[in-house]
Amino acid sequence: MSNDRNRILMESIKRLLRRGATSHLVKILNKTHAADLAVVFRSLSRSHQKKLFDLIDDIEKKGRLLMELDEDILLDLVEDMDMDALVKVLESLPEDDVADLFSVLPEERVEVLLKKMKEKGLEEVEDLLKYGEETAGRIMVTDFIALKQDMTVKEAIEHIQKEHEDVEMPFYLYVTDDYGKLVGVSSLRQLVLVPPETKLREIMATDVISVQPEMDQEEVARIVARYDFLAVPVVDETRRLVGIVTVDDVIDIMRMEATEDILKMAGAGEEFVETKSVFKSTRIRLPWLFASCIGGVLASLIIGYFSGILNRVVYLAAFMPVIAGMGGNVGTQSSTIVVRGLATGRINVRDILRVVSKEIATGFILGLIYGLIIALVVEFRYRIDFLALSVGLAMVCSMSMAALMGSLLPMLFARMQIDPAVSTGPFVTTATDIVSIFFYFQIATFLLGI
Amino acid sequence: MSNDRNRILMESIKRLLRRGATSHLVKILNKTHAADLAVVFRSLSRSHQKKLFDLIDDIEKKGRLLMELDEDILLDLVEDMDMDALVKVLESLPEDDVADLFSVLPEERVEVLLKKMKEKGLEEVEDLLKYGEETAGRIMVTDFIALKQDMTVKEAIEHIQKEHEDVEMPFYLYVTDDYGKLVGVSSLRQLVLVPPETKLREIMATDVISVQPEMDQEEVARIVARYDFLAVPVVDETRRLVGIVTVDDVIDIMRMEATEDILKMAGAGEEFVETKSVFKSTRIRLPWLFASCIGGVLASLIIGYFSGILNRVVYLAAFMPVIAGMGGNVGTQSSTIVVRGLATGRINVRDILRVVSKEIATGFILGLIYGLIIALVVEFRYRIDFLALSVGLAMVCSMSMAALMGSLLPMLFARMQIDPAVSTGPFVTTATDIVSIFFYFQIATFLLGI
Repeated sequence: MSNDRNRILMESIKRLLRRGATSHLVKILNKTHAADLAVVFRSLSRSHQKKLFDLIDDIEKKGRLLMELDEDILLDLVEDMDMDALVKVLESLPEDDVADLFSVLPEERVEVLLKKMKEKGLEEVEDLLKYGEETAGRIMVTDFIALKQDMTVKEAIEHIQKEHEDVEMPFYLYVTDDYGKLVGVSSLRQLVLVPPETKLREIMATDVISVQPEMDQEEVARIVARYDFLAVPVVDETRRLVGIVTVDDVIDIMRMEATEDILKMAGAGEEFVETKSVFKSTRIRLPWLFASCIGGVLASLIIGYFSGILNRVVYLAAFMPVIAGMGGNVGTQSSTIVVRGLATGRINVRDILRVVSKEIATGFILGLIYGLIIALVVEFRYRIDFLALSVGLAMVCSMSMAALMGSLLPMLFARMQIDPAVSTGPFVTTATDIVSIFFYFQIATFLLGI
Repeated sequence: MSNDRNRILMESIKRLLRRGATSHLVKILNKTHAADLAVVFRSLSRSHQKKLFDLIDDIEKKGRLLMELDEDILLDLVEDMDMDALVKVLESLPEDDVADLFSVLPEERVEVLLKKMKEKGLEEVEDLLKYGEETAGRIMVTDFIALKQDMTVKEAIEHIQKEHEDVEMPFYLYVTDDYGKLVGVSSLRQLVLVPPETKLREIMATDVISVQPEMDQEEVARIVARYDFLAVPVVDETRRLVGIVTVDDVIDIMRMEATEDILKMAGAGEEFVETKSVFKSTRIRLPWLFASCIGGVLASLIIGYFSGILNRVVYLAAFMPVIAGMGGNVGTQSSTIVVRGLATGRINVRDILRVVSKEIATGFILGLIYGLIIALVVEFRYRIDFLALSVGLAMVCSMSMAALMGSLLPMLFARMQIDPAVSTGPFVTTATDIVSIFFYFQIATFLLGI
């Protein structure tokens, strides 16, 4: 939906809320997609949100809307809700969405809700919650079509018509043996093209790619994206089929992971903070700047240590920002390329030597070029013996070192199983600042004499 | 496929290539998915790539492999290929994939290929190429199921069985009027649940969300992601159904757009460069650093201008890096949050005032906190009158200004329809450097007296 349509929707809803035109509102709510309603909810007052939510007839839409809402709005709405009414809404959602909701609700609430759902025989959600956060198990649904390999095509079609008429993703038919082990995959289309007495085992594809419930969601997303799947089966350690992960969840994961990586690289937390209050936003961003602050203090100590040479050639100070800044930018380029390459699978952790040496070479060449440019500016402007040479050499050092650190740090982090995205941003630029300044003054001290 | 499986595959293929074990190779090639082969191709020599490609029997797999290969490998392979053989491979691909391939091949090649395909009656690709790059038109397929609204369910089922048995995405059945205008959507499942004599117009959903062929791919991806679609219909200005965009293409777009944004934010080009040579990589990254270089020279001139005060209090130089660095980091945080917010639709261009003022407030608070910390360090270490106050105030200024520029620049860029991602990285940090240093020395000159 375009921004224009969204604005019109928002304005109509606000107007109708002011006028208390309930029947009009109900009509609009029925017609509007939950995802669009979530956008409208963002700019409504708490009381209007509550009122609007209560006006939604369709229990399934209520559920989908809850899934789409920002966390703080969701928590507010749920807090006031009657528990039994909430259970009814949750029943209409796929179990992976319920598990997702539960991960943000207060624990005591979740316990009560789980108990209530259990009484109604809805135990799947509890099963999902056993898996770690950000694993495949948390986003799988158990609502898939599994057929025994000894069934004939005719039996399979009858079975599907009888048992699975409302399955979420009827595109893949998974084939299992007598123990529920996944042994193959077929499709509705394939069933139609062969004689009805054919057994499934004769027509199924046997090289099924599957994932494990404990697999990281990011890895699952990579597999679905790589093979253009609409869903991927999840099997336990005995290869028993326990669920499927569908492509719509994969899209959400990919978007969230990209946001997370981007924010981490900039040292701005992990979750999107713009919609949060100034104080929340400050609290999230504060600690990420601490490394940079410590680094700055260190840099000041180094400069203080070289105050002798600085006292004699005060113009040395003039080129500190450009040397540190250019280094910082090259370091950011390197770390960004490496982090993104690792995330998308274009770079492998094993290639550490090749990647880092290529980055150093690139940094060195870039340093030579910009070192020369800056040296010419210095020579032209100040004509102090050896000042131009000092600045130029420092530039080469700074940019090569920055490329080294910018590529090495994320590769090492990845090897140690730490998310490489956190290594960039503040860390790389701060480390570059310190190293650049040290080399600069060291070179200047040597060249300009004591 | 896990890294381990990939490595084993790679090693087997390399060993078999060395031994010239053709029949073994053919067997492995038949069993392996094109996406996995593409990874193996990356680490083979050009001659081995060619040999392996020729060994693939399955013409469709050849096509899919071409789609998955890195651009330089693809160009090399295609250059040596016989044109007629290439046309055969292209025939097996969906037309949006062929259009995608054509956008990287040399123009004269494309002309010959288009002519040859036209002779065979394959004009769809040429139709797609009329649309601009990065539009919905380029990634749509014309291979969809469209049914007339006056058909009965029974007629519809027969029609699908006869005409559409190999359609790529049989999940949505689009319903049109007599002029081919899109008027509704239904599904196979729905057809099975109603009496055979029901007309489609009675059961179809009429609020179909569609896109235009000229719509930006990123916008299409947002729509598919928002509504959890498996495909979205493309209609021309008269609402005639001309194609569909499927979810697998949307996943590719989302990944590419995220990579592009991340690289642009770091000033590291738009396309992923790691696999390119050092010189190519240098050439791509060189211009992005130029803004930073100019900014550095400007900063040096400002510092030169203040050399009087610097000569008297040489320790002023020691705190330049921390003031500029902290400012740069806050600026990067702000710009990253804003750029990502704009990309994912969490921030709207119209909210410029609200977003920027919130960022300034956050920057100001962060500046107060870190300004105080640094001022204490300065006071403790140097005990020079007013030096601590100068540094502390400069920090508050620098961090507030950085938050202002970091949020305002991308918002303004977005308003002027320029990709906000390019405004961050080098630009924000460089602008912050200059402004921070200017304010720092101005404050110091005032406080430390002349």
